[in-house]
Amino acid sequence: MLEMPAPIDGTAPGPLKKQLRLNAIDMMCMGCTPGIWTHPRDQSEGYTSLRYWTELAKILERGKFDAIFIADIFGVYDVYRGGTAPAFLNAVEFPVCDPMMVVPAMALVTEHLGFGVTGTISYELPYSFARRVSTLDHLTEGRFAWNIVTGYLASAARAFGLKDQLTHDERYDRADEFMEIVYKLWEQSWDEDAVVRDKKSGVFAHPEKIHKVSHKGRWFEMEGYHLCEPSPQRTPLLFQAGASNRGREFAAKHAECVFIGGNTRPIVARSVADIRRRAVEQGRDPRSVLIFAALTVVTAPTDEEARAKYEDYRRHVNIEGTLALISGYSGIDFSRYDLDAPIAFFESNAIQSFVEAFTVADPSRIWTLREVALDAGVGGSGPKEVGSPQTIADALEQWMRETDIDGFNLVYAVTPGDTLDFVDLVVPELQRRGIYKTEYSPGTLREKLFGAGMCHLRSDHPGAAYRVQPDVP
Amino acid sequence: MLEMPAPIDGTAPGPLKKQLRLNAIDMMCMGCTPGIWTHPRDQSEGYTSLRYWTELAKILERGKFDAIFIADIFGVYDVYRGGTAPAFLNAVEFPVCDPMMVVPAMALVTEHLGFGVTGTISYELPYSFARRVSTLDHLTEGRFAWNIVTGYLASAARAFGLKDQLTHDERYDRADEFMEIVYKLWEQSWDEDAVVRDKKSGVFAHPEKIHKVSHKGRWFEMEGYHLCEPSPQRTPLLFQAGASNRGREFAAKHAECVFIGGNTRPIVARSVADIRRRAVEQGRDPRSVLIFAALTVVTAPTDEEARAKYEDYRRHVNIEGTLALISGYSGIDFSRYDLDAPIAFFESNAIQSFVEAFTVADPSRIWTLREVALDAGVGGSGPKEVGSPQTIADALEQWMRETDIDGFNLVYAVTPGDTLDFVDLVVPELQRRGIYKTEYSPGTLREKLFGAGMCHLRSDHPGAAYRVQPDVP
Repeated sequence: MLEMPAPIDGTAPGPLKKQLRLNAIDMMCMGCTPGIWTHPRDQSEGYTSLRYWTELAKILERGKFDAIFIADIFGVYDVYRGGTAPAFLNAVEFPVCDPMMVVPAMALVTEHLGFGVTGTISYELPYSFARRVSTLDHLTEGRFAWNIVTGYLASAARAFGLKDQLTHDERYDRADEFMEIVYKLWEQSWDEDAVVRDKKSGVFAHPEKIHKVSHKGRWFEMEGYHLCEPSPQRTPLLFQAGASNRGREFAAKHAECVFIGGNTRPIVARSVADIRRRAVEQGRDPRSVLIFAALTVVTAPTDEEARAKYEDYRRHVNIEGTLALISGYSGIDFSRYDLDAPIAFFESNAIQSFVEAFTVADPSRIWTLREVALDAGVGGSGPKEVGSPQTIADALEQWMRETDIDGFNLVYAVTPGDTLDFVDLVVPELQRRGIYKTEYSPGTLREKLFGAGMCHLRSDHPGAAYRVQPDVP
Repeated sequence: MLEMPAPIDGTAPGPLKKQLRLNAIDMMCMGCTPGIWTHPRDQSEGYTSLRYWTELAKILERGKFDAIFIADIFGVYDVYRGGTAPAFLNAVEFPVCDPMMVVPAMALVTEHLGFGVTGTISYELPYSFARRVSTLDHLTEGRFAWNIVTGYLASAARAFGLKDQLTHDERYDRADEFMEIVYKLWEQSWDEDAVVRDKKSGVFAHPEKIHKVSHKGRWFEMEGYHLCEPSPQRTPLLFQAGASNRGREFAAKHAECVFIGGNTRPIVARSVADIRRRAVEQGRDPRSVLIFAALTVVTAPTDEEARAKYEDYRRHVNIEGTLALISGYSGIDFSRYDLDAPIAFFESNAIQSFVEAFTVADPSRIWTLREVALDAGVGGSGPKEVGSPQTIADALEQWMRETDIDGFNLVYAVTPGDTLDFVDLVVPELQRRGIYKTEYSPGTLREKLFGAGMCHLRSDHPGAAYRVQPDVP
């Protein structure tokens, strides 16, 4: 059994002992939060164009971001006011395009940036999904990552012809089976030395080194050869963001990188410890799971300017749209509550953790639903840091020290403005402090994150168990 | 009822009355025919890299090709010798990657080239497929086309967890239902004026102009809003290649462009007349269906050099691989037949039409299975033209005059060499003769092919029937 890691950094003095990692979070829709697309600096209405994505990719590579992560969703937000009108009026994660499609164009204009995309297991067929992912891993030369999601909107289930979605835990059970199939396709179907491509002999591959995989389970039954020869990473780098108990269990088993939310550092620290503990229970090295916390950063040369910028963003928040979003997340129709009554007085069963989280994050304020929406409407419901590059760098260090995270998922408010600000102002400050890379490491995305030679899944990862063991002579 | 078209051009003297259209056929694998990847000039082993596809796209746009068409397949060829070894050894359309993934990168480096990709209805979910296609139509600014395929390999069905594939006609019935759903999503879900994107008022779209579509049929049941706002073409340009009676019926109903095979001009002429007649029966203008014949062209400055090039290609054909391919197509294990016996003496029920077609195409030769494979191994089993640019241009004109086709699907033997030869040698000759464009037309792919203003499906196309009619005030 692997031992639990000693608490690192923590409150220890001196420089941070690990490098901070950065992902940029995005979505192929009109911005990450409702209403901000109306800001004069925001360019998210270009989300259907190739140039929009290739320009963003170039900015991120200039800022040495590890990866861009494009979230995805299949359903529509129809809980608030019992219908879709608020979501449609305000472009609340709708319309939303297929995010895998922008990866090849972004890969063409970059050399190192990683590309993480959400793939929703409930609405994919494992055989064709495995091929699509392998194709992207080939085309990006090993820079592809998959954010494993099971899906949470009932409207999506109906769009795919299901009466309703499976229960929460059933979705994860089915997802475990889906993972088993794709591991077999990625890890087991082709031996490492199957492909020879010898023009002289005319032999492309050794047929006896290409294996048919089969699966017969509760949810799936199939047999077939993986259609792609092994891509640089084989299994793409695996991300997951499960927050529930069953979701955490799934993440601790499969994820190499975990996304977490949480509005305060103590809350995040507890989540991090929990995830590392669960990884150990799964027989994995707890340090082989990189953990990223969501964070919105608004920065400017001075604290005062940053503050003014943040206040300006708040004026563009669309309250109705934001409530439609959080009603969809929670399943609670918040239109039934008084916008200006303190949420502390709502019936407690109506207050979901993410609404309560605001009062936890800042108990000195009186939080109303309006205040919650205004806060969540700037870069999402996660924590925010607003200030000069020095202030931001101090805050990021503090997050790293107190929570044991490995880095951040940056969520913009205005795009690409906030990303540009971060790259131009904060990145140099982080580099000056020696806590952020000045050059990318070579190799695949997995190697960049875990070190040279770590091209494939680690041997203690459950996916590695599906590999065909080399014959012992 | 629309009238049948008067026979055009035919044997009439004088210049061709219509412009010749060109698509380049490809596949995301080690070349279109087995073995040719061993040729020193062939570069198909780069098929997993972005540069391979973007360089090809630039060559095609330089040659003013209307589109590149990337075929696809989900199964493996396992009929020949009762197993997959010959197909795996010789890279017979295996491995094969997801062709949709190279479209965005090719679109980034071109302005006019169209992108047609095979999408296999049997193995796609209509809701997510419709979104993926709309995303590509957005990103390419209306240059996307879909080649509608139902799938024909039993091994693919098993890989997707089906006991066996549906019967041939059932596959088409199911495909008709699939088309109904995607038409509703593409044509009906969003009114033309639904999106306003008004930064001042903050209104993204009028909710009452976005409609939930629903479907309840034999094969599918679903309800949902299309997740993408209308893309430039809405329904992508539709290609189909059905050769059977049921396939032709499907093509005549849905296809705007039809791919046909056929080794002689009289055979192709009969197919063309049949497709146009069936289109009329469906209430469509027979000229609204563009018909493309498969053709392999091997060219060089002189006839003699072209002939020598062709003979050189034949020496790289992989006989076993080619037999694995045609065994897969036909379902007949050709390993049971003598490679050097004249095929005329085979039991007739074992000789499928595409094998017989060789004797029909050139009855002056004695065709053996080896000769069939050598012929089919250079650019596929379709017709070939080998010669100088003048010889080729004469031949293309003759094909156009005698068959009433609208253009060609060019199939290379060696890639990108044959395409480069065609662009550098034949295209200028066609342009000199005034039968090939010297500039692209503006607009979407559908407009380039059918004229200005023809951005969407024609009103006589069955997909147009799903549009919401504007309210009459």
